[in-house]
Amino acid sequence: MSKSINYCVIMAGGIGSRFWPMSTQKYPKQFQDILGTGRTMIQQTYDRISQIVPAENIFVITNKEYISLTEQQLPEIKTENIVGEPMMKNTAACNIYMAKKIEALNPLANLIVLPADHLILKENIFLRKVELAFNLAEKNDYLITLGIKPTRPDTGFGYIQFVEKKGAEYFKVKTFTEKPNLEIAKTFIESGDFLWNAGIFIWNVKSILSAFDENLEEMSQHFGSCEYNSEGEISCIEVIYPKVAKISIDNGILEKAKNVFVIPADLGWSDLGTWTSVYENSPKDEENNSIGSKQIITYNAKGNLIRLKTKSKAAIIDGLENYIIVDTEKALLICPRENDQLIKDYVQDLKNLKKGDKFL
Amino acid sequence: MSKSINYCVIMAGGIGSRFWPMSTQKYPKQFQDILGTGRTMIQQTYDRISQIVPAENIFVITNKEYISLTEQQLPEIKTENIVGEPMMKNTAACNIYMAKKIEALNPLANLIVLPADHLILKENIFLRKVELAFNLAEKNDYLITLGIKPTRPDTGFGYIQFVEKKGAEYFKVKTFTEKPNLEIAKTFIESGDFLWNAGIFIWNVKSILSAFDENLEEMSQHFGSCEYNSEGEISCIEVIYPKVAKISIDNGILEKAKNVFVIPADLGWSDLGTWTSVYENSPKDEENNSIGSKQIITYNAKGNLIRLKTKSKAAIIDGLENYIIVDTEKALLICPRENDQLIKDYVQDLKNLKKGDKFL
Repeated sequence: MSKSINYCVIMAGGIGSRFWPMSTQKYPKQFQDILGTGRTMIQQTYDRISQIVPAENIFVITNKEYISLTEQQLPEIKTENIVGEPMMKNTAACNIYMAKKIEALNPLANLIVLPADHLILKENIFLRKVELAFNLAEKNDYLITLGIKPTRPDTGFGYIQFVEKKGAEYFKVKTFTEKPNLEIAKTFIESGDFLWNAGIFIWNVKSILSAFDENLEEMSQHFGSCEYNSEGEISCIEVIYPKVAKISIDNGILEKAKNVFVIPADLGWSDLGTWTSVYENSPKDEENNSIGSKQIITYNAKGNLIRLKTKSKAAIIDGLENYIIVDTEKALLICPRENDQLIKDYVQDLKNLKKGDKFL
Repeated sequence: MSKSINYCVIMAGGIGSRFWPMSTQKYPKQFQDILGTGRTMIQQTYDRISQIVPAENIFVITNKEYISLTEQQLPEIKTENIVGEPMMKNTAACNIYMAKKIEALNPLANLIVLPADHLILKENIFLRKVELAFNLAEKNDYLITLGIKPTRPDTGFGYIQFVEKKGAEYFKVKTFTEKPNLEIAKTFIESGDFLWNAGIFIWNVKSILSAFDENLEEMSQHFGSCEYNSEGEISCIEVIYPKVAKISIDNGILEKAKNVFVIPADLGWSDLGTWTSVYENSPKDEENNSIGSKQIITYNAKGNLIRLKTKSKAAIIDGLENYIIVDTEKALLICPRENDQLIKDYVQDLKNLKKGDKFL
């Protein structure tokens, strides 16, 4: 294979507090085998994209706290491709950082940006759409996203309104709306010309860097002051990071840019944003329990999600229906599945306990 | 205090599988703070009896596996007073063993035999009844038990039928029945002249040893062959133990002997034989939850018993009613309180798993 101009950035900086107690600040969701498949979410993401992007072109950007976790889980990736952010700054900063860094390696590079913690069941469709996107990005000054057909008026996603052109495989984006309220989300669903933003972006480094110049000029100037892939890169980044805006790539670039395109893609996608979405995407037994390990025995138990972090542990569950039961060394969570949105509140209550932080 | 002729034997050999996963073969119930009071069951038993029996006269007999646990929990007791059985042989064998051993130290000794894992709330009544029993045993060839007024036709206890003599503080026992079936237990309760056998026995060493001579002659001969409190005691016991019958003191002696007396005693007693009895005997919060530690937060949860073995762990429990939730390093148990009799079955099912033993 001649040297590929296609690169990948896996974004792995999140904390995933909705997955407490499995996901913690020390060990967030993307580094866990949330679905019980034998591979963690970031490993699944790597496995998928490495079929079309060579390993040496795959980068991970994460909080610097998680660099060693990433190295452990993805030994295939070169150490210098695992990049630590000095602090949380939302997604615009890490996108320009990685675009700058990769442009310095290869000014012709196309880039796919992937969240580290999403589920994609239809791998072949995903790979085909990504190849289409790479081709488009190589030849056009397009900012491309993959769009998922929405199944419910979820207020946790960005929505992409497109301008249809019959028979085409991709469409120009008319509006880009991050996390609407429920009323608006419902009208989006009814109109039929909206897709969910899966947070998967494909662009040429030149295209995205000029979009930054145009829409986030100050951030561009900050990142323009560093010399990438040099000895001074890390210390320069440490200096500029505190100064740059906390803004998402959606708000900062995609809502404003005029050259955004979407490729509708039926990916069997889930952002696995809640335990309920994990439950829905997991294999289940004949009683509709999603059970993470063989040492769990259930009696009269239906529709539960049960996870034990420790393999050396067993569980006996008698009589629960539609519950989430998650057990780790630090905490046990038992709550109705329908209350999974309350987990952040539970965690807050726990924090308020004396020495409560140690359970998080 | 002149040298007391009153001795105590705490029997601490059981395994308590109905308290799985808290009670395990390695760490049985009597060595645990099942009620969350800050003292384990055997420590509570020691604290109670040491008010009237001097520490040097208190013995513990347990499986040899638990000798070091006993030493850790009861540093007040001399090492030579902590006696290990080489194998489980029910209660007749350990009773004759300890009577022989204590007789060799003091041929006039009165003995109280106490289970290590029972709850007694009315300590003063207990102590008063024990002093009465010691006095009776000193002057009479009586085998004395404390009898508890039954509150339900429980089939897990022995029942004592007594011959009433108005105004007396103790009664001659007419029949002694170990674990009747439900039908019989009901007639016992209705008749009004039955008490529960709490497994607390008081006798002079001479009385109990002659009862053994009479009723379990072969066992008497075996135990007659050892020299107690000598260097050779342990190896002699190792030789005879495999040969002696597996029989309870109730079946082997008390059902047959003619000189059995009972002292009715309102002790606030529970054998804490099930999680439900622990629940009933524990302090509860305003939602009737019995909660073992401060790091447990409940929402819409009522009537539950919740125990975490590890102090470094928290729990969030949302929405359960009348459940048992017990969590240890090895296992998590969640079951309706009314199913606590099934715990032995759960444990059996777990044993049948591949490598299931490691969770027990």
